[in-house]
Amino acid sequence: MLPPTLLPPPFHPGSVWLVGAGPGDPGLLTLHALHALSQAEIILHDALVPEEILSLAPQSRLEAVGKRAGGRRTPQLRINQRLIAQAREGRRVVRLKGGDPLIFGRGGEEALALAAAGIPFRIVPGISAGIGAAAAASIPMTHRGLARSVTFVTGHEISADLDRVALNDVLVVYMAGRQPDLIARRLLDAGRDPADAVAIIQDATRPEQIVRLMTLAETAEANHTATRAPALIVIGPVVALRRHLAAWQQIAPMTVVMNPQQIRAAG
Amino acid sequence: MLPPTLLPPPFHPGSVWLVGAGPGDPGLLTLHALHALSQAEIILHDALVPEEILSLAPQSRLEAVGKRAGGRRTPQLRINQRLIAQAREGRRVVRLKGGDPLIFGRGGEEALALAAAGIPFRIVPGISAGIGAAAAASIPMTHRGLARSVTFVTGHEISADLDRVALNDVLVVYMAGRQPDLIARRLLDAGRDPADAVAIIQDATRPEQIVRLMTLAETAEANHTATRAPALIVIGPVVALRRHLAAWQQIAPMTVVMNPQQIRAAG
Repeated sequence: MLPPTLLPPPFHPGSVWLVGAGPGDPGLLTLHALHALSQAEIILHDALVPEEILSLAPQSRLEAVGKRAGGRRTPQLRINQRLIAQAREGRRVVRLKGGDPLIFGRGGEEALALAAAGIPFRIVPGISAGIGAAAAASIPMTHRGLARSVTFVTGHEISADLDRVALNDVLVVYMAGRQPDLIARRLLDAGRDPADAVAIIQDATRPEQIVRLMTLAETAEANHTATRAPALIVIGPVVALRRHLAAWQQIAPMTVVMNPQQIRAAG
Repeated sequence: MLPPTLLPPPFHPGSVWLVGAGPGDPGLLTLHALHALSQAEIILHDALVPEEILSLAPQSRLEAVGKRAGGRRTPQLRINQRLIAQAREGRRVVRLKGGDPLIFGRGGEEALALAAAGIPFRIVPGISAGIGAAAAASIPMTHRGLARSVTFVTGHEISADLDRVALNDVLVVYMAGRQPDLIARRLLDAGRDPADAVAIIQDATRPEQIVRLMTLAETAEANHTATRAPALIVIGPVVALRRHLAAWQQIAPMTVVMNPQQIRAAG
């Protein structure tokens, strides 16, 4: 039997789509995201979006605007201005972000700037890095008897924000970078159980994914200088379920096979 | 220029994919989910997964196992047994859930049962209902100066779980059903600001989406008998951003156009 046909909504010239690219595996792009990539005339993308995903928009101009390791970040105001200027020239503009645009992605700020400038836009949610990472690491976010809530928090700045949520069932700490020890110490000071299970997940959903398991007390003592961004931390008893699950889970990502013409261009 | 080719990972006979279908808009399916639907021999799906999405698997047998309004829910143990039995018969089995399998989706329980039975599986994350709903309602989940963490919690049972997270920056309450008033009263009792902004979102990302805005105090007093499941509530100052954004956002879903043969079969 023939499958039905998917009819995407129009991507109008002069509008901006704020698109979540998901955690890294191209198979976790949404159909809206793939459509946006196929239609874009210009894509402003974070440094964290993998080359494979960018290759799905061979017709589009690409501009990297995210922070690179040791490099400079394009100021947010400059990104907003660029999105507005490109839309005003009548282009189909994509702002492509790792994960989801509205969870630590500053998509709200960009949407406000576009609305203030009278530019139509669309927010295309993506698989947030924490959710994709937990799934690929075989860690349920909620689980009967273990966790009835989950909190996403940034570890970029270690502040009272962490104290306020320190005793929540499950914590997913984004942008944990090289400071999981400082985060763990802050949570211990706020009264979290030193024996609580912790997973530090790096390059989630990518072939090079690394998952390290330890207790919260061990996280506070360990040397994390080898942990590269983007790393995130999952904390809570649910982490312990991984050891029952991981051996049985298949996590191979979707592969992007470039056509010969693209390979020549890239070489 | 020819676009590259996407090469999905194999979906082996005798394995089970636990797949998130996202919040309702077929455009929010992931590429992995679409692949799983195209390969499935049997799909056990929640009642909340829209017909349109099920129609993307015309070759597959479909079994509804979720709770319907006023109907019976298939016991979880029975679902687990059915998944295992079908996989043991060598089929490609999909367990399709609204939203994400690991956020209030009981995917963890199913994965544990599969692992214990020695059945290979894959967890395919989906756009969680709360994240999809907030995006479609033009409500950022985090926002500089307003929210540096977001907590997902169930409103199915109103308990101390709500008290513990009551003062977090942003709350997304799943399965709020007909009791947003009781949820609001519990949060007020726990000390949350009565003037805080609330959005009650129903049928998120679907053409029939409804967003109602009020304060937390008003939510506690309002009559919610007209609120149908699945409804969810977003609480926090970020909700107020919607009024600047919603008029400029395009939210038309992706449409599934059935082929004539399917329409005859459905008729």
